[in-house]
Amino acid sequence: MNTLSEPIFDVAQLAHVELLTPDLDGTLRFFMDLMGMQETERRGKSVYLRGYEEQYHHSLKVTEAQHAGLGHVAWRTRSPQALERRVAAVEAIGLGRGWIDGDAGHGRAFRFATPEGHPMELLWDVDYVSIPPGQATKLLNRPQRRPLNGIPVRRIDHLNLMAANTGACRDFMVDVLGFRERERVVGDNGSAIASWLSVTNLSHDIAIVPEPTEMRGRFHHVCFHYISVQHLFDLAELAREAGISIEHGPGRHGIGGATFLYMLEPGGNRIEVMGDPGYMIFDPAWKTVVWEASKIADAVVWSGSPVPDSFWVYGTPVPRPVEGTTIAAVA
Amino acid sequence: MNTLSEPIFDVAQLAHVELLTPDLDGTLRFFMDLMGMQETERRGKSVYLRGYEEQYHHSLKVTEAQHAGLGHVAWRTRSPQALERRVAAVEAIGLGRGWIDGDAGHGRAFRFATPEGHPMELLWDVDYVSIPPGQATKLLNRPQRRPLNGIPVRRIDHLNLMAANTGACRDFMVDVLGFRERERVVGDNGSAIASWLSVTNLSHDIAIVPEPTEMRGRFHHVCFHYISVQHLFDLAELAREAGISIEHGPGRHGIGGATFLYMLEPGGNRIEVMGDPGYMIFDPAWKTVVWEASKIADAVVWSGSPVPDSFWVYGTPVPRPVEGTTIAAVA
Amino acid sequence: MNTLSEPIFDVAQLAHVELLTPDLDGTLRFFMDLMGMQETERRGKSVYLRGYEEQYHHSLKVTEAQHAGLGHVAWRTRSPQALERRVAAVEAIGLGRGWIDGDAGHGRAFRFATPEGHPMELLWDVDYVSIPPGQATKLLNRPQRRPLNGIPVRRIDHLNLMAANTGACRDFMVDVLGFRERERVVGDNGSAIASWLSVTNLSHDIAIVPEPTEMRGRFHHVCFHYISVQHLFDLAELAREAGISIEHGPGRHGIGGATFLYMLEPGGNRIEVMGDPGYMIFDPAWKTVVWEASKIADAVVWSGSPVPDSFWVYGTPVPRPVEGTTIAAVA
Amino acid sequence: MNTLSEPIFDVAQLAHVELLTPDLDGTLRFFMDLMGMQETERRGKSVYLRGYEEQYHHSLKVTEAQHAGLGHVAWRTRSPQALERRVAAVEAIGLGRGWIDGDAGHGRAFRFATPEGHPMELLWDVDYVSIPPGQATKLLNRPQRRPLNGIPVRRIDHLNLMAANTGACRDFMVDVLGFRERERVVGDNGSAIASWLSVTNLSHDIAIVPEPTEMRGRFHHVCFHYISVQHLFDLAELAREAGISIEHGPGRHGIGGATFLYMLEPGGNRIEVMGDPGYMIFDPAWKTVVWEASKIADAVVWSGSPVPDSFWVYGTPVPRPVEGTTIAAVA
Repeated sequence: MNTLSEPIFDVAQLAHVELLTPDLDGTLRFFMDLMGMQETERRGKSVYLRGYEEQYHHSLKVTEAQHAGLGHVAWRTRSPQALERRVAAVEAIGLGRGWIDGDAGHGRAFRFATPEGHPMELLWDVDYVSIPPGQATKLLNRPQRRPLNGIPVRRIDHLNLMAANTGACRDFMVDVLGFRERERVVGDNGSAIASWLSVTNLSHDIAIVPEPTEMRGRFHHVCFHYISVQHLFDLAELAREAGISIEHGPGRHGIGGATFLYMLEPGGNRIEVMGDPGYMIFDPAWKTVVWEASKIADAVVWSGSPVPDSFWVYGTPVPRPVEGTTIAAVA
Repeated sequence: MNTLSEPIFDVAQLAHVELLTPDLDGTLRFFMDLMGMQETERRGKSVYLRGYEEQYHHSLKVTEAQHAGLGHVAWRTRSPQALERRVAAVEAIGLGRGWIDGDAGHGRAFRFATPEGHPMELLWDVDYVSIPPGQATKLLNRPQRRPLNGIPVRRIDHLNLMAANTGACRDFMVDVLGFRERERVVGDNGSAIASWLSVTNLSHDIAIVPEPTEMRGRFHHVCFHYISVQHLFDLAELAREAGISIEHGPGRHGIGGATFLYMLEPGGNRIEVMGDPGYMIFDPAWKTVVWEASKIADAVVWSGSPVPDSFWVYGTPVPRPVEGTTIAAVA
Repeated sequence: MNTLSEPIFDVAQLAHVELLTPDLDGTLRFFMDLMGMQETERRGKSVYLRGYEEQYHHSLKVTEAQHAGLGHVAWRTRSPQALERRVAAVEAIGLGRGWIDGDAGHGRAFRFATPEGHPMELLWDVDYVSIPPGQATKLLNRPQRRPLNGIPVRRIDHLNLMAANTGACRDFMVDVLGFRERERVVGDNGSAIASWLSVTNLSHDIAIVPEPTEMRGRFHHVCFHYISVQHLFDLAELAREAGISIEHGPGRHGIGGATFLYMLEPGGNRIEVMGDPGYMIFDPAWKTVVWEASKIADAVVWSGSPVPDSFWVYGTPVPRPVEGTTIAAVA
Repeated sequence: MNTLSEPIFDVAQLAHVELLTPDLDGTLRFFMDLMGMQETERRGKSVYLRGYEEQYHHSLKVTEAQHAGLGHVAWRTRSPQALERRVAAVEAIGLGRGWIDGDAGHGRAFRFATPEGHPMELLWDVDYVSIPPGQATKLLNRPQRRPLNGIPVRRIDHLNLMAANTGACRDFMVDVLGFRERERVVGDNGSAIASWLSVTNLSHDIAIVPEPTEMRGRFHHVCFHYISVQHLFDLAELAREAGISIEHGPGRHGIGGATFLYMLEPGGNRIEVMGDPGYMIFDPAWKTVVWEASKIADAVVWSGSPVPDSFWVYGTPVPRPVEGTTIAAVA
């Protein structure tokens, strides 16, 4: 019998992302009033939010801090034993930071970091959201009604991190956590410039793009999900009216194939919303799609105006002096 | 350590569906001229088709026959050894029908049937499509350009079968093949009336709905994928002009949450096209959503005109005498 | 020189519609919370509303009353002298009811009725809306920001009235007010069954459909405008959650070509929202499109499930006993 | 009685545009294969095309020539006598160039030019299209079925011309032809930089933007109409695959409010396609919306990436040397 090494199935999904913001009120207005996210809980300097289709306590934790950036990323495993297996794998290469008892919305979680220090967690125990008062719905596969405010996002989709050594971060995600690399941009020598990886049928749950500064562990963006490019245009109007900087889009990516809109939330973090989800990957033997760096324009934008330079430079936290990193905001 | 039995990951995806048609030319015009599918090969009385985003040789095989209906359904496993494991499981319960050497587009495959006789196959070896002449594209994650004809579907999505004992068929898919039941409609006694199941992050790769006649093994529909509800309206116009019967929609399902349009292709088989894909399931501990039969109207149609009676009666092959099964076609 | 009689250009547009409702609070929640309309003013038992693109004080007046139905329809003329000319024409045939000094949002207006008694007004002086506090926008062709609540409609589009003698009402609108008949459904003897008429480039500013009861002057629906069929699906979700009856749609009309969704607001009046606007008429010599009654299914619904019987029967006020007029609501 | 001078109603609509192209085959492939336009007739070096909703013989005439650019623009009047009135008005200011007997698709027409020499025609007699063989449709308000090829445009919408003295051209269109100026961009001294004008309920049938070169009579773009922003993304994919330069979009304009995509057809002319139509103007006393030049970024792009510099420079014919006019094409 012909055999094939089978993938690791231990990580099931992106559970949540924590964003740091120097402007908590502004950030909350952005996510709640414009993007229609629901507040589940407040604790100390943190507020826990979720999209209306999401069953867990939160998919986004917003925490007041001196600078914008990534708080942490949490991945949910497929089972308690899958959690133990991945924790052992992380500890084996020395990137573990130990267990915490939990946080609002979930139980014990194991902290670790990517090779460049992006804080991550692995967890199994999660709390499901209670139906908000007056929000019981006949649509039984949703925990609540569709919100009446803003252009409400449905769920978190993926995140994107910046790394000086994208290949090393990619290898970590693949070898230790079991992600599959779905698309890749390579330099002349074939080395990875950027990678898109997933554990699901999505084309990416996480992407890793180049870090052009001396900083490490920076955050590029987190993406939330709509179902139509019309919603991107609708949200863009609300964003313009509210003085939110629109960096790029609406457009369609080559890589992943989704339609996109990029904004800077008031705290400074880059946020993507996607319309239709692009292609999905069901082929269990999918071969990583490889783009040469010279074709990166097609790779990043398939339909629409070309990506601005800020897309390759701007991340949070913003380095100082900030002169070189201002983005050409439309607002 | 708390543990949990882990799911079977052996079946990866719906690979293709074979439809039987008494009107091969009409059926091909429907799939090629209106739905923009691409012909890969012809062999005997069969034509092999695919959507423009699909990497395999075909996702739809159309075979001339005396009556409309299902030829077979093929599921691709995650690996050669996964194939062997599932074959053993099928043989263990006596539903196996033995290996075939292969067909156009794939290698050896194992034939079996559901408890009600729907013909199915399990396979691993598949052929990837060659780029059609003149269709090379800069969009490297697609095997060809977007077609210029019709409103082209992107890929196959799921299929739906009719069964007298839906619970037994559901149990077979779950216990033997490793599907997870995502949503369910139950009668007063809690017994399954209909089930939606998947091995992917889709809400269903297959659904099983009630068979109201004495026939067994009937086909309800196969569904192809767009990305926007706009495409459903666009295709509906082409269908109306071409004299194709539109049975129902555009609308949005409660179960699964996708937008839909149902038509009868000229051979008589019901075909669904979906716009946006509805919700996806990433929760590894997803609990089957259970709808009482009294709520079935909400379950089937969340947005839009109610489903016509034909939806619960019509399937292929059509029983004779056919009086009781005519559908209220719009054409 | 070849000459042609030129049309009357005196009526410019549908200015506003007044609806009567036995459930003022419910009706306002529908229009404001779900359809995102803006309140301009309250006076006595009336509330004045507008869509966010509309420049006038209101396009919808909602007045508490014992029964649902039409309060009145107001048409704005192209000039003060055009108003005088049309008033003279109405008075000449004895359908005038005299001047009123005005109402919130407009100056003096001339009251009249169609041959079947639908109350109408002609007016020239209108008040433009003041920018609501905090709603100043950089988009100078709009009087305010896009609202954050509901799926906000942009503007009023058209209305539809029921008449026992649709031909007589049509002739009145054409001969006395200067409307052009754009499409028509005719019976076997060629007599008008229903008519769609406009003074603008829209395919209809008003439609007149058959009255199957002994009542006169009944209201069929008023329609508000979106720009995308996606918005119809979005609103349908909000309507379902809020317990609003959806009568029909989303679908696309044959006549006019617009996409539609029909609901009953809590007061009982039928409300249409349209997505894309269908075709527009620029041809100054447009010949009325004539549909035979046997083709009415195509005429009314081009894409989508067939229109339910209630569409041809239900209107406001609802006759009593009401048994025969209940509509097959989806809720 | 308060009176108001009434507008001239003599020009009814944009009837057709003639484009010159040095690459007739390429230009035809663009309009027919990608944009789904229908060929009505060929005569000498000219091909006559129309969108599938259009009732006239053609809305676009494409003529082979040494350089790209505008052949002429034709406006249809409301009546034969309206034609005579406008001809007299044009002749009175000395811009008339005399009558021609007609062309394929229309009868006698009067030639004239704008103050900067853009060739125009006024006409009344037009030929209606015959139903193409096999294209008879049950949808009686359309002359043919929806085409199966490309992403078919419905109709012509507007055109845009470049002028050194935009104010003089605007005055000509308003004073002599009866257009209303709907929106305007002004410089510090209040003088017109650009104008959007219409005779219909559209926000513009024609726009006039600055000419930055020494050339006169140049063409900026002509626009064709879809109904959804989804179609812009669909066409953008076809354009990318076919090697067509996409200059800008998809995005939403501030002025006019429509969604747009700008491309250069193979002959070099800029072509716009619009999705939803933006706002329409029904107010007979509409006051021209005035944008200061400093706000031009908001005026031109309300949602989406900012307009590239080429938008303000590129027109056809292209001046030589061409160095300064290359556009930053995405292809």
